[in-house]
Amino acid sequence: MQNNEMLSTMKHIKSTNQSLPEQVAAQINQLIIDQNIGPEQKLPNEFELAERLNVGRGTIREAVKLLVARNCLEVRRGKGTFVVEKTGQIEDPLGFAYVKDKITLAEDLMELRLRVEPWAAQLAAQRITDEEMPELQARCEEVTRIIRSGEDHGAADKAFHAYIAQCTHNSVITEIMPVITYSIEMYTHFRSKRLLEDTIRTHTQITEAICARDPQKAYEAMYKHVAQNQDGIDMAKQAVVEN
Amino acid sequence: MQNNEMLSTMKHIKSTNQSLPEQVAAQINQLIIDQNIGPEQKLPNEFELAERLNVGRGTIREAVKLLVARNCLEVRRGKGTFVVEKTGQIEDPLGFAYVKDKITLAEDLMELRLRVEPWAAQLAAQRITDEEMPELQARCEEVTRIIRSGEDHGAADKAFHAYIAQCTHNSVITEIMPVITYSIEMYTHFRSKRLLEDTIRTHTQITEAICARDPQKAYEAMYKHVAQNQDGIDMAKQAVVEN
Repeated sequence: MQNNEMLSTMKHIKSTNQSLPEQVAAQINQLIIDQNIGPEQKLPNEFELAERLNVGRGTIREAVKLLVARNCLEVRRGKGTFVVEKTGQIEDPLGFAYVKDKITLAEDLMELRLRVEPWAAQLAAQRITDEEMPELQARCEEVTRIIRSGEDHGAADKAFHAYIAQCTHNSVITEIMPVITYSIEMYTHFRSKRLLEDTIRTHTQITEAICARDPQKAYEAMYKHVAQNQDGIDMAKQAVVEN
Repeated sequence: MQNNEMLSTMKHIKSTNQSLPEQVAAQINQLIIDQNIGPEQKLPNEFELAERLNVGRGTIREAVKLLVARNCLEVRRGKGTFVVEKTGQIEDPLGFAYVKDKITLAEDLMELRLRVEPWAAQLAAQRITDEEMPELQARCEEVTRIIRSGEDHGAADKAFHAYIAQCTHNSVITEIMPVITYSIEMYTHFRSKRLLEDTIRTHTQITEAICARDPQKAYEAMYKHVAQNQDGIDMAKQAVVEN
């Protein structure tokens, strides 16, 4: 069995009431996969695509727009259309921004994070390379620095958690972690001084355990850390009730 | 603190080199959130949006196209633009279809599934309602029926796993499960007769344990079931090597 044949089984199962540009977008995707057009590589031009897929250039243009919107392609003026580096990934892929009840969303995320993040820290402690250690330490220090400066550390915090996921060397964990840590930025401003000091301390413990390649300690430190966030949610809940 | 204020902290942090339609799309999203425009509800018309966001109608049209492509909005001809039911969710949100090394992807997915799915089955056993039980049983029987008929049971299999996630009553698990069971459809045709019989048996055990509200049995049955899929991946690996 050819690898290609296997890839073709990955074709999306399409509903029948798709518009023509939708169908052509799916065909362009398949072309990218079949022809091994990699990240940052150029797509055949509009004319060639129209000919190959047997549709008008207007339809190709519409389909390309769809794929640009989905972060698969990028049009560089005067240079052509390119496959983007992180194909298909968009910010907030599960549409959490649209969820009305953010408290329940945060609690649901927390339930999953308590299950996945300590385990990811454990894996990271088993798999981190020597080269990755200084980067992890730097990200840990960056969060500490921002907290001490009194600014919002939400983005840096998220980046720290994302890097731990990366150190698992599991591509799915790496991609899914920023999704399930979605609520981090929402709750950082609810944190009291005590919670902030807790964050600094547990982040340091997590980093040290991973760099010491101690999976059990990494697991425990991360569990303690994620569980602390529960306090932030409780404070947010309280704040909503009071208003 | 108002709930609205909290929502506004969820605003996407935008890179500075965004196109105008991109920026306007983000503003429309914010408008949907701020004004509580729910699923299936109508957006203000193009003219009104152009006025409110202080841009041309052409830009509004481009921004709406972007949001249609991202499955946030839907244009109903002659009726207006509506917020879709499952806002922001697209098929394959993490772009797995573009990953070249599908074997490693499947192994990475498997590692995560072995951690998350047995736990989800356990939660489902604790939280399933009486009303959900017949539906779960029906989906289990449907997979059995399709396997017995000799057809590809991939889609029905995925639907069975998705429904278990739904019975956890955790919205994040519900939404993330179809993402991490992505590889199910890829490997169903690798299954030998023995593996198919295993699937029927473990699916039945999972369903019975959940409907008996026995979390430990549900956990174990799901663990055994997901671990069986490893054999499918090994067979696929072998098939690639042999060609």
